Amino acid sequence: MTSNTGHCKIVDCTIRDGGLVNNWDFSVEFVQDLYRWLNEAGVDYMEIGYKNSPKLLKGADSAGPWRFLDDKFLREVIPQKGETKLSALCDVGRVDENDILPREESLLDLIRVACYIQDVDKALRLVELFRQRGYETTLNIMALSNVMENQLIEAFKAIADSPVDIVYIVDSYGSLLPDDVNYLVDQFQKYLPNKRLGAHMHNNLQMAFANTLLAAGKGVELLDASVYGMGRAAGNCPTELLVAKLKNPKYEVRPVLQMIEKHMIPLREKEEWGYIIPYMITGLLDEHPRSAMALRNSPDKDKAVDFYDRLMTVETVRS
Amino acid sequence: MTSNTGHCKIVDCTIRDGGLVNNWDFSVEFVQDLYRWLNEAGVDYMEIGYKNSPKLLKGADSAGPWRFLDDKFLREVIPQKGETKLSALCDVGRVDENDILPREESLLDLIRVACYIQDVDKALRLVELFRQRGYETTLNIMALSNVMENQLIEAFKAIADSPVDIVYIVDSYGSLLPDDVNYLVDQFQKYLPNKRLGAHMHNNLQMAFANTLLAAGKGVELLDASVYGMGRAAGNCPTELLVAKLKNPKYEVRPVLQMIEKHMIPLREKEEWGYIIPYMITGLLDEHPRSAMALRNSPDKDKAVDFYDRLMTVETVRS
Repeated sequence: MTSNTGHCKIVDCTIRDGGLVNNWDFSVEFVQDLYRWLNEAGVDYMEIGYKNSPKLLKGADSAGPWRFLDDKFLREVIPQKGETKLSALCDVGRVDENDILPREESLLDLIRVACYIQDVDKALRLVELFRQRGYETTLNIMALSNVMENQLIEAFKAIADSPVDIVYIVDSYGSLLPDDVNYLVDQFQKYLPNKRLGAHMHNNLQMAFANTLLAAGKGVELLDASVYGMGRAAGNCPTELLVAKLKNPKYEVRPVLQMIEKHMIPLREKEEWGYIIPYMITGLLDEHPRSAMALRNSPDKDKAVDFYDRLMTVETVRS
Repeated sequence: MTSNTGHCKIVDCTIRDGGLVNNWDFSVEFVQDLYRWLNEAGVDYMEIGYKNSPKLLKGADSAGPWRFLDDKFLREVIPQKGETKLSALCDVGRVDENDILPREESLLDLIRVACYIQDVDKALRLVELFRQRGYETTLNIMALSNVMENQLIEAFKAIADSPVDIVYIVDSYGSLLPDDVNYLVDQFQKYLPNKRLGAHMHNNLQMAFANTLLAAGKGVELLDASVYGMGRAAGNCPTELLVAKLKNPKYEVRPVLQMIEKHMIPLREKEEWGYIIPYMITGLLDEHPRSAMALRNSPDKDKAVDFYDRLMTVETVRS
C-alpha cells in the first residue's frame, strides 16, 4: 500500500543523535546489541557516534566514548563487521581533519558532515577531503526551515559543482509539515538533479515518520531514523516503523523490537525524548529546542503555558 | 505552508474516546474546563460522551457519567453554551433510540452513529431518525482497513441514497498510511460526491496528525482530534496540533495548552495512551488493539517480542 521505496536505505542514528539525550552514556553491550540487531533487521547503516574532536568542544570530559569515536576502540566494540555499514557524523568547526584516518585503516564506511547554510563551503571542503580518504560522504544541511530561498539556491550552486555524493534535508527544529517537505524535496531535485538525497526529520509535530515516508516516496534515498525514536528533544523517525513499512523484503521489525524491549524501554524510564509539549512548542515556532530542553531540566518543566507566553513575547520583540 | 484547510471543522473527542482509557472517570471540573478552553481555542465541536444505553451494555455501573449522557445532567455541567457545539456518539446495537430527545429539548447539536460495514443499513436508519429529531448527523464507518472494496462499494450505494449529512473515514486500528488515506478519500469522494466527509485517525503508527492533515487538504471537512491525543490505545490526532496548524485564524493553541498543563499532564501520569509498542504492533498487523490493551494490563506489559511472536503465530494459523 506504500509508494515505491525499494531504493531506500536506513541510517540508524540511535547512538549519535540519542547520545544528545544521555551524553552518549551507552554501554558497550548496548552498542553491540544494537549493531547485532540492526544487522538482523537489515538496516543499512548504523551511525555509531560523532567524529568531532574533544579539543574543539566544551564538556568533552564527561561524555561517553561515542561522542569522540576512536578507531582503535571501535575495533574492540565491533570485532566482526556484518552487512550493516558504520557511519560517523562530524560538525564543521568541531572536527579535526587529522582525526579521520584513511578508510582502509578505519571501520567507518560513511562520514557525514553537518553544517548550517552559511558554512556549506567549509563543509564541502571537508567532504572532498574525506572522499579522497576513501569514505562515502554526505553533506547534511541543518535547520532548513530557517533558510531563505536565495541562500539555499546559492548553496545549491556550490553543491552541484562539488563531488559530494549525497545531500541531506535536515529538519533540525521538527517544524516541517508534509507540504514543506514536498516543496523542499522538489527544490533539491530541481537544483541538484545529479545528487542522491537524504532526509533527517524530528518529531516535534509528530511528523517525523510521515515526512520521512513522504521523502522516500519522492525518491529520497537515505532515511535517518533511531530505535524507539531516541534523539534530541522530540526525537527522530522510529527505526521500527521504517523497517516495518518500507517496501523492501530484507527489512525485519522483530530484531528492532528485541532492542526496544531489552534496552530502550528501560532507558526511556531514565531519560526523556519524544512528543513532549515544550518541544512541540519550539517546533510550532520553528526554533531550536534548546529553550525547551532547559525548561525540561528545571522545576518548571511542565509549565507549558508560561513557556509558550515567554517564547511568543520574544518572538514579538524580535520582529 | 499548509494545503487549504479553511473549510475544516474540529471535533474534539477527548471525553468520548479518552473515556475508553479511564472508564469515563472525568470530573465535572475537567469537562467544564475543557469546554471553556475548547471554546476559547475556536474548536467547533466537543464530543462530550456516548449516548448509548446502559441497559444494552455490560459493566455500565462502574462507568463515569460521560458514557451514558443524560440530558438533564448535561444542563448542569454546561449551564451556558458557547460557540462550541456539543456532540455525542452512539453505536449501532447499543443505543436505545428513545433516549434521543428532540433536539430542542437537548443541549446536543450533533449525533454520530458508529458502525461496522455490515451494519451500515441499521446505522442509516438511526441517522435518519436523529435527523428527523433535528440533529446534525454523521455516519462513522469503523475499521475501514479491514473492509473489502466490494463491500464498501455496496455500502456507498446505500449511503448515497440516504439523507445522511456527513460520512466518516475511521481508522479504528491506526494502521493506515498516507497512501491508504489518499486512496480512501478518493473513493469516498468518487462514490459519495454529494456527501461531506469526516476523518477519525488513530496514532499507532504515529500517523494520526499526518493522515488527518492529508485528509483535510483533500477536502475532508470534519476532523476528529483529542487533547494531548488522549484516546483508546495509541490515541488520536492531537487537538493542539490541529488548532496550531489548520489554516483558520479563529483557532488558538494557547487555551489547549492550558488544558494540557492543568489536566492532561497529571492524568497521563495515571493513565496511559499513545505510541506504546504493543499498540504499534497491532497497528502494523491491522487488527483491533484489544490484545495489546490486555497485555498492557498484565505483568508482561513490556514483553513486546513475545507479544509480536504470538500475534504472528495467530496470523499464520488464521491464513
